[in-house]
Amino acid sequence: MLTDRIEADYLLETTGSPEKAADVMAGEQSSGTFVAIPGETPELKERSAARVVHLTVLEENVPVRSLPSPGARPGEKVTRAKVTLSWPLANLGPSLPNLLATVAGNLFELRQVSGLKLLDIRLPQAFADRYPGPKFGIEGTRRLSGIASGPLIGTIIKPSVGFDAAQTAALVKELCEAGIDFIKDDELQADGPACPFDDRVREVMKVINTHADRTGKKVMYAFNLTGDMDEMRHRHDLVLAQGGTCVMASLNSVGLAGMIELGRMTQLPIHAHRNGWGYLTRHPLLGWSYVAWQKIWRLAGADHMHVNGIANKFSEEDDSVMASALECLTPMFPDKPCTVMPVFSSGQSARQVPATFAGLKSTDLIMTAGGGIMAHPDGPGAGVRSLREAWDATVAGVSLEERARTHPELGRALEMAA
Amino acid sequence: MLTDRIEADYLLETTGSPEKAADVMAGEQSSGTFVAIPGETPELKERSAARVVHLTVLEENVPVRSLPSPGARPGEKVTRAKVTLSWPLANLGPSLPNLLATVAGNLFELRQVSGLKLLDIRLPQAFADRYPGPKFGIEGTRRLSGIASGPLIGTIIKPSVGFDAAQTAALVKELCEAGIDFIKDDELQADGPACPFDDRVREVMKVINTHADRTGKKVMYAFNLTGDMDEMRHRHDLVLAQGGTCVMASLNSVGLAGMIELGRMTQLPIHAHRNGWGYLTRHPLLGWSYVAWQKIWRLAGADHMHVNGIANKFSEEDDSVMASALECLTPMFPDKPCTVMPVFSSGQSARQVPATFAGLKSTDLIMTAGGGIMAHPDGPGAGVRSLREAWDATVAGVSLEERARTHPELGRALEMAA
Repeated sequence: MLTDRIEADYLLETTGSPEKAADVMAGEQSSGTFVAIPGETPELKERSAARVVHLTVLEENVPVRSLPSPGARPGEKVTRAKVTLSWPLANLGPSLPNLLATVAGNLFELRQVSGLKLLDIRLPQAFADRYPGPKFGIEGTRRLSGIASGPLIGTIIKPSVGFDAAQTAALVKELCEAGIDFIKDDELQADGPACPFDDRVREVMKVINTHADRTGKKVMYAFNLTGDMDEMRHRHDLVLAQGGTCVMASLNSVGLAGMIELGRMTQLPIHAHRNGWGYLTRHPLLGWSYVAWQKIWRLAGADHMHVNGIANKFSEEDDSVMASALECLTPMFPDKPCTVMPVFSSGQSARQVPATFAGLKSTDLIMTAGGGIMAHPDGPGAGVRSLREAWDATVAGVSLEERARTHPELGRALEMAA
Repeated sequence: MLTDRIEADYLLETTGSPEKAADVMAGEQSSGTFVAIPGETPELKERSAARVVHLTVLEENVPVRSLPSPGARPGEKVTRAKVTLSWPLANLGPSLPNLLATVAGNLFELRQVSGLKLLDIRLPQAFADRYPGPKFGIEGTRRLSGIASGPLIGTIIKPSVGFDAAQTAALVKELCEAGIDFIKDDELQADGPACPFDDRVREVMKVINTHADRTGKKVMYAFNLTGDMDEMRHRHDLVLAQGGTCVMASLNSVGLAGMIELGRMTQLPIHAHRNGWGYLTRHPLLGWSYVAWQKIWRLAGADHMHVNGIANKFSEEDDSVMASALECLTPMFPDKPCTVMPVFSSGQSARQVPATFAGLKSTDLIMTAGGGIMAHPDGPGAGVRSLREAWDATVAGVSLEERARTHPELGRALEMAA
């Protein structure tokens, strides 16, 4: 539904009336305050107030409150509800930074709230008109990487830190020869004195360009340009000048104004890393859902968004991973879908392919594997091929075990991952 | 102690061995990974690995884990510990954005962790050499506001949204005449179509400049310039050109690269708003402590940092507020203290002054009051004077009740706040 109002959905937990807590939230984030203020006329309230447009009680008599508050009493009644607030666009205009202060500002510390998670946001068309969104997205990533169909099979430079530029380039050479589609820097490596960004780009692009000249395949390398704005501008331009096809940025390190600036100026796809995401979401009743959060960054210009992976080494459950990935492929606006490549990572191997495809029902993704490629007993080339074979089989409706009978590299990968 | 290593302290909760969890943290955030990697030599490990430099078990047999994880078992042993990790500066160099990815990256979602809070960070001198820190700080704020001693008494434009530029300026006129030192925009108002930033600056500065011409006192107004980078640059320049003396930015909206850029270019003090802080800290076993967090922003260039207030309307306890405020006045580096004005707000009035001074033992602060000024029964001028009288009495060691006997405006303020 087109509207000139901004909407946000929350999972609210409160020890009082949920209706009252929702009213406090709406008041705190618009014209209302805790005391009546001179100049606050009914007309002004009507024009500017946030509204509680929806409230459904989900659970009453929750055994214990999720977050501490002063004045907690044993035996108090704790209620959870889904609440939708809306704001007139005229309060803030189509500004992403000011959207954050509005939908995710002074709310989580409210005394009336013993749990609050931002579940989703819906934005008026004015935001789509104002911000670039992904300049490359799925189509541009396929074009630049030369992978017209199927997932991009990728990996991460490991060890994360410790390699110098020449050592990194030597590993990249091995990976190119293994047939990889995509390589990324680790988020811990941007411009460390032991592996300066500029040196790394020059050394790595020499390898990638030579490989491309020989084979026609230019491997996409996401160079981690995370840094101060002037550094990021310089680094972007260097990658472009050296013939690179991707840059990477850590969203929580760069922040929103920086990402918007990068999104506007970039001539390369932006591989967006979410490290730090855990502190925004790990508690089920605090912070951000990925569904809400990733919309901000897609609109700001991210082309690839990390979503963790099925059977990952972290604490996230598979259904959460899949919900995140599906959201990346869900259009945001009718004329501006802002769809991006979901990036699956963390302990990935051929073994995870069937569940990944069953959930996503698409091969528009980047799958990065570390051990699954580098530790394959027949070498990295076999590691890459085992992943491709797993995807080919899965998309064709053939089980991995069946395909492995005729494809021993897949079989060895499955033995390794078992 | 001077060192070329970065240190971070964490409150860790784990269901396994805390030593093992700390090792996983150190490995994940440096050269280590979960599987051995070709090229990862002992020399590389020695040079690049993060180290666990300190671990103290704080609590064993915690009744229930703080954060959910797959594989939680009833009756499992939950332990809390304080852990210090250190990293060689050479891993990342003195880069604030990359510091975030290192000390607060992929840690909070670790499966081994059922609770993790970043408590503090200690940075080598190279960070002080690289970043501007507050350009104005306490001394510059006093100079520009003309308040040589005592707290700056301030207020916030309310209603937060709904006023146009002319209505805002009319309220500013009333506040100037009331003798206020400092006024700030609400964080919900930056450049809303109903109150465009440029109009607001022009209208408000006309009032402030006229008042300054007449009285010699230029009230400091923190204009909320939060927005995209190009907007913030333009808005900064406009405030400067109109004779303004302060700009305000929402830290979680702008983000770190944007704040660093603003900190480098600003010719005005930066009033840093922390809205959204709740989602970073509200759970005691997840996210950031303010002590760690505010160091990042001070080094990036914040001059004033919000710390909530004593007996505030939110969920934060007084001891947490005071720890935050004291930290703002604690030097970060011997030659570059980066001390900033703590900003007390939220339901503040004369009543909170004695506890604020008892904790802070300083009058280097900004105290913003809304109702405490605007709702004073004798008008805003009496509201401002009641706050000054409360501070004068408190600093002189006189109780508010005693001072109120000879200062009826303070007496009325105390009655109102009771």
